[in-house]
Amino acid sequence: MQPVLAYETWGELNAERDNAVLVFTGLSPSAHMACSAEDPSAGWWEDMAGPDKPLDSNRFFLICMNSLGSCFGSTGPASIDPETNHHYRLNFPVLCIEDIARAGAEVLNGLGISQLYATVGVSMGGMTGLAFSILYPARTRSLVSISASARARPFAIALRSIQREIIRRDPAWQKGRYPYTAPPVNGMKLARKLGMVSYRSAAEWQQRFGRERSTEETTEEKPFRHDFEVESYLEHHANRFVGSFDPNCYLYLSRAMDLFDAADHGGSLEAACARLELERALVIGVETDLLFPIEQQQELADLLYDVVAEVTFKTMPSLQGHDAFLVDMKRFRPVIAEFFRHE
Amino acid sequence: MQPVLAYETWGELNAERDNAVLVFTGLSPSAHMACSAEDPSAGWWEDMAGPDKPLDSNRFFLICMNSLGSCFGSTGPASIDPETNHHYRLNFPVLCIEDIARAGAEVLNGLGISQLYATVGVSMGGMTGLAFSILYPARTRSLVSISASARARPFAIALRSIQREIIRRDPAWQKGRYPYTAPPVNGMKLARKLGMVSYRSAAEWQQRFGRERSTEETTEEKPFRHDFEVESYLEHHANRFVGSFDPNCYLYLSRAMDLFDAADHGGSLEAACARLELERALVIGVETDLLFPIEQQQELADLLYDVVAEVTFKTMPSLQGHDAFLVDMKRFRPVIAEFFRHE
Repeated sequence: MQPVLAYETWGELNAERDNAVLVFTGLSPSAHMACSAEDPSAGWWEDMAGPDKPLDSNRFFLICMNSLGSCFGSTGPASIDPETNHHYRLNFPVLCIEDIARAGAEVLNGLGISQLYATVGVSMGGMTGLAFSILYPARTRSLVSISASARARPFAIALRSIQREIIRRDPAWQKGRYPYTAPPVNGMKLARKLGMVSYRSAAEWQQRFGRERSTEETTEEKPFRHDFEVESYLEHHANRFVGSFDPNCYLYLSRAMDLFDAADHGGSLEAACARLELERALVIGVETDLLFPIEQQQELADLLYDVVAEVTFKTMPSLQGHDAFLVDMKRFRPVIAEFFRHE
Repeated sequence: MQPVLAYETWGELNAERDNAVLVFTGLSPSAHMACSAEDPSAGWWEDMAGPDKPLDSNRFFLICMNSLGSCFGSTGPASIDPETNHHYRLNFPVLCIEDIARAGAEVLNGLGISQLYATVGVSMGGMTGLAFSILYPARTRSLVSISASARARPFAIALRSIQREIIRRDPAWQKGRYPYTAPPVNGMKLARKLGMVSYRSAAEWQQRFGRERSTEETTEEKPFRHDFEVESYLEHHANRFVGSFDPNCYLYLSRAMDLFDAADHGGSLEAACARLELERALVIGVETDLLFPIEQQQELADLLYDVVAEVTFKTMPSLQGHDAFLVDMKRFRPVIAEFFRHE
């Protein structure tokens, strides 16, 4: 398979070709990290990347790739297999985080970049950035890992496994052979709602919603609908998500996170990290993160302390849990800016 | 509606009729708390209740009631409405925790008990015990609340709302009109798996399962099945649960927990607790509990400190999360025993 890889760039590659920063995304975003002349719509990390932003496109050549296996331009289960002229669907091979990292290296090859200034990864992308740094030690000088980890733990695996089963149990999934005009919407919505529970925090919701009642009425036609505002919030967000993301792609990427274990590279996490040739690393974790708990951020930082000359570990007290890097800009922007101000 | 209420008893009511202890269960157990001459099978709290156990049937007259709305003998949505000769199903009225508490008072009326030595409640039953103590201040001298709270918070509401939606989305649910020979098994299994995630803790699973692989094979027939032991564990437990519990009863009891707010009795939690006439109270919370977090246990204890002469608040470092009261007997037995040794 010769995959298509969709990416966007901001800023200019300098003459020395040493100012490139590659951003690996979480499970669901596209390569559209920030607005640009070509696409002025706001990106998923609009406040973080662009001219004079913490990831400053005046200084750096920023690259953001749509993950291999996703459905926003890069090859994935929803793509057409040129050999059969049919969508891959479940014939797409098992996807690993390392495959996404290798796709990142392909993008750099195409751009003629042999070494990055930095690799930045958020959530699943943090796993990808670590895999990239282990697979290609010479290709990045530094690593920023945000709300990620060196391997998946059983609690996160259980949550993702249930999300996948919710999608698979939707009769509309049809063992992956759903018409693209009629995907398993209910399964995707429910999986997304469960995702929201794991992406945010109990403390945030207590503050935002408390026991506020929903304005939605429960009728005899719709028993057991929504009594509380938090339920309406989940419904609203799930509706926004559904339609944009292909269910089979979701299954593949979700499983890739479960399968990731940096220890596969050498037999232990320590052996894997011994391969790194990083000059600097920044690990950011959030204290309220349920999915990538702060102990795992500490574990990653401890591993890096042993092999990287300059390691910064920041723990954020953000209330927004795993999603904090998308919303708690007041805390995240200065930390990222500081790391990239370095010279 | 004149509900049937199923209960079991252990020990003897003394001549003064003042040694009765009423136990309110969590969402899913029956009244069979411990073995007895009539039913020698092990109960759901076998290590806690019986002769010479912490809840000592040699000293106390123990009563455990199957919750109103449940399906193990007490009237609930799976019962037959004598007026129509059909199962109630969704025609069963909205169930509140207070209804279960009132059913407890009915049981006491039938037994000729005007005042309990203690009310003991676990999880949902702790909410019920608090409701009982607020509704009938003169009917209990003490209260034991284990892994419960004075009201539901949005994080727990969200999880339970998703569980209910999972069941409702199972086509076999048929808007509650499923044949009792073919209930929505897949929905119930998935809801139970999500329940397990909220009942245990990430730390426990990390210790028990780590990244151990499942022996179950993923085949082409069953793509996206189980790669990890934690997934097989969930499957095993979900299979055990399904079949024993009626889906509509589950929906009613689950919603009752969301709806409970002790502040409904007087306008605030403080006003509600001002009604209490308890001599003693014991609040037990578990530090790893996701569903009834330790802050909520602290909140309840603080409320009781203001109005009850003797309050004990115990925080348990158990790894087993919300379920610890069922499994961490080494920690729970001595605390319960100590409370009931009191004279």
